[in-house]
Amino acid sequence: MRNTVNFTSLLLCLSMICSNCGESKQANSQSNRPAGQESVLKLAVDPIPTVRIGFIGLGNRGESAVYRYTFLEGVEIKALCDLKQDYIDRAQKQLADKSLPKADEYIGQEAWKQLCERDDIDLVYICTDWLTHTPMAVYAMQHGKHVAVEVPAATTLQECWDLVNTAEKTRKHCMMLENCCYDFFELNTLNMVQQGLFGELVHGEGAYIHDLRSLNFDGSGESKSYYVNMWRLRFNEQHTGNPYPTHGLGPICQAFNIHRGDKLNYLVSVSTNQFGMTEYAKQKFGDDSPEAQQEYSLGDMNTTIIRTELGKTIVIQHDVTSPRPYNRHHILSGTKGFAQKYPVQGIALEPQAHSFVPAAQFDSLMTTYKHPFIQEIGEYAKKVGGHGGMDFIMDYRLIHCLRNGLPLDQDVYDAAEWSCLVELTEQSVKAGGKPVEIPDFTRGEWNKLNGLNFAK
Amino acid sequence: MRNTVNFTSLLLCLSMICSNCGESKQANSQSNRPAGQESVLKLAVDPIPTVRIGFIGLGNRGESAVYRYTFLEGVEIKALCDLKQDYIDRAQKQLADKSLPKADEYIGQEAWKQLCERDDIDLVYICTDWLTHTPMAVYAMQHGKHVAVEVPAATTLQECWDLVNTAEKTRKHCMMLENCCYDFFELNTLNMVQQGLFGELVHGEGAYIHDLRSLNFDGSGESKSYYVNMWRLRFNEQHTGNPYPTHGLGPICQAFNIHRGDKLNYLVSVSTNQFGMTEYAKQKFGDDSPEAQQEYSLGDMNTTIIRTELGKTIVIQHDVTSPRPYNRHHILSGTKGFAQKYPVQGIALEPQAHSFVPAAQFDSLMTTYKHPFIQEIGEYAKKVGGHGGMDFIMDYRLIHCLRNGLPLDQDVYDAAEWSCLVELTEQSVKAGGKPVEIPDFTRGEWNKLNGLNFAK
Repeated sequence: MRNTVNFTSLLLCLSMICSNCGESKQANSQSNRPAGQESVLKLAVDPIPTVRIGFIGLGNRGESAVYRYTFLEGVEIKALCDLKQDYIDRAQKQLADKSLPKADEYIGQEAWKQLCERDDIDLVYICTDWLTHTPMAVYAMQHGKHVAVEVPAATTLQECWDLVNTAEKTRKHCMMLENCCYDFFELNTLNMVQQGLFGELVHGEGAYIHDLRSLNFDGSGESKSYYVNMWRLRFNEQHTGNPYPTHGLGPICQAFNIHRGDKLNYLVSVSTNQFGMTEYAKQKFGDDSPEAQQEYSLGDMNTTIIRTELGKTIVIQHDVTSPRPYNRHHILSGTKGFAQKYPVQGIALEPQAHSFVPAAQFDSLMTTYKHPFIQEIGEYAKKVGGHGGMDFIMDYRLIHCLRNGLPLDQDVYDAAEWSCLVELTEQSVKAGGKPVEIPDFTRGEWNKLNGLNFAK
Repeated sequence: MRNTVNFTSLLLCLSMICSNCGESKQANSQSNRPAGQESVLKLAVDPIPTVRIGFIGLGNRGESAVYRYTFLEGVEIKALCDLKQDYIDRAQKQLADKSLPKADEYIGQEAWKQLCERDDIDLVYICTDWLTHTPMAVYAMQHGKHVAVEVPAATTLQECWDLVNTAEKTRKHCMMLENCCYDFFELNTLNMVQQGLFGELVHGEGAYIHDLRSLNFDGSGESKSYYVNMWRLRFNEQHTGNPYPTHGLGPICQAFNIHRGDKLNYLVSVSTNQFGMTEYAKQKFGDDSPEAQQEYSLGDMNTTIIRTELGKTIVIQHDVTSPRPYNRHHILSGTKGFAQKYPVQGIALEPQAHSFVPAAQFDSLMTTYKHPFIQEIGEYAKKVGGHGGMDFIMDYRLIHCLRNGLPLDQDVYDAAEWSCLVELTEQSVKAGGKPVEIPDFTRGEWNKLNGLNFAK
């Protein structure tokens, strides 16, 4: 056990051991740090005046990432890697359009390893399917590269520990590309939280509710499908729980200072049966089609409740098959005020918190508490684009910190804490909602930092 | 165990027995119906042309109930009971204002028993504090009266069983006064659900999020306080979990046909620590005041996930101390559409479910699917008032069904299913979110009725 045990977690351990889950309890915690590695809290490395980058995965996210990086100063796009030549050509065209030098090309199943093995690359930027994120990130760090990896950074608890242990051994940055942490409402309300506008935060909610049926079933399994060979649907066939928790959880964990004064203690997770994918497949491919006959493990809606060491709760939902409007919730409830982003942005403040502030006051709050990142680069980010600008703010900050030798906004512990829900929610769902401990990936240092402070 | 066991509930029982909660598991189920009682599903009794009523509790809810009943035909208000003469006088004035005969008066701690023992009363209408609901309802039924009782009808699992067993023994109606089931959006969307507009419902959400700090702390414990002697705050001192679940759960259970084709299998419940009451008490009474020094068990926010036999989920929340806008959620998510009531009413339908329908289409849907109750009495109910009219629709339906010998809209199993969360959520919260079985109060007949059908 880690050195901080409260009554709840004790109760929890008992119940978990009793209910024959001693092994999962064991697997979840790795309290002893292996020899030869140290904490990477606030890791800072020597400034890298020009950040030399290799991109792996040039499909949806990768293509747009390369495009955005052509707008950044102090970077060199040295290498491009994908399974498909046309994706590489598409990315090269982005460079040519900006009169940037052609990048070296790596194509094929194992080509990414050669990219990682180069000695003239500082950062490996990984935009592949979920299952390859951790193997690539670990290999890149082992070969001396810093890593930026798409969400979720890992799909199993062991992968989360692999990322943490490798980053601690190699002293390399491993930042998960949780772009929602850089969205405008999220950044401004984070600033409000840090300024005390909402008092002490008590409860938060996040979600990824996005009807992806048409994308998940695009291409009938061929390589031209939106998710190459329908890798996302394949994952949903085999896994339940919440496979994609980080968009909702990331911004909430930042507001709650997770591993910077508080920590995630345990979760309970419950999923519905699967209804929507089969119904959609029947409509699109016919009742007797392989798609309609296929069994899908993922329930339509998953709801997870997390309790923190300081007694706060965070609710996270995932639903990619129900016909309903896009929603990430982003609810922040404190002792003096309240904010929510969906379905309409609203802020309520004492002593009139019974209703949301009028539009004019909302706008003036957004101006008064405009986050420094948005003041600095917000307008330009909107021009470059990428989910309305948040993607570019993320890229800008990553490169800014690397060029100036600063700690990154998101560290490897964030990546592990936010990604570990992929397996832990599945553990809980399969055990009928049984509580599952969330490990302390900092190994006892969750209370060492005094809140979240972005490097300047 | 009841005769329907699926794998999940089996897993659950195992985990519960393993984790030393065999006793709670035992307490939760009462599979064998005691001799001398039968199911009261669809209970109908002889028509009561003029319903003679005795009211117990004439404070907040009771006073407004008496007022509303002066607008109903076919009723006689025979008796009024309270602890305070001025509340009785206030109610008598309501009658006098309508030139209705003066009612007999019962005052004092035990006076309600004499009211129940009269032989010229058909219906006992109970609007007292939570802890007296079940004792009064049981005593009234035992003395041959039908019962209407405010929410929650019970505060313990044993009380839920007492209501069910007494109703089955005495063949009397026991309806919980869950007024939110009669609100306009809830009734119209229930109609949409029953017409198939949303396809098959998969997930629902309800809540009672209402900042009650000023009311809970009103009166400093004196009898003139809003909740006489601050009974609600006293309950919050001693209990955690969700003490007031029915406003959110009732309308959702009706939409999900609970004990009319589906049933609530188990729940997991997690609460935050208590922050808001102490902070409020410090501000209002000072740091050293008894109110600020008092320990309060109730967490600010409680979130509960329920899973049903058919694999649907229902999320219920309770928060009466956080400064945020009133919210009952009322979210209905199906395979073809979606509805939510707060913070803004919205409906989304295939194939454009990525956004809510425009205002004009929303209005036309509300007209097309206007619930028969609203068509019949909606406009008049708005004039009489009572939470915008829903209270009067509830009263109207109760009296209509009694006068015509029809089954009531809500039966004693609804009252038990919705109220049992008071204890079961506390069980789960205290055990670190452990899954807790929800008993089948129909004792195996949850699948006997084919959906919810209100009597005409």
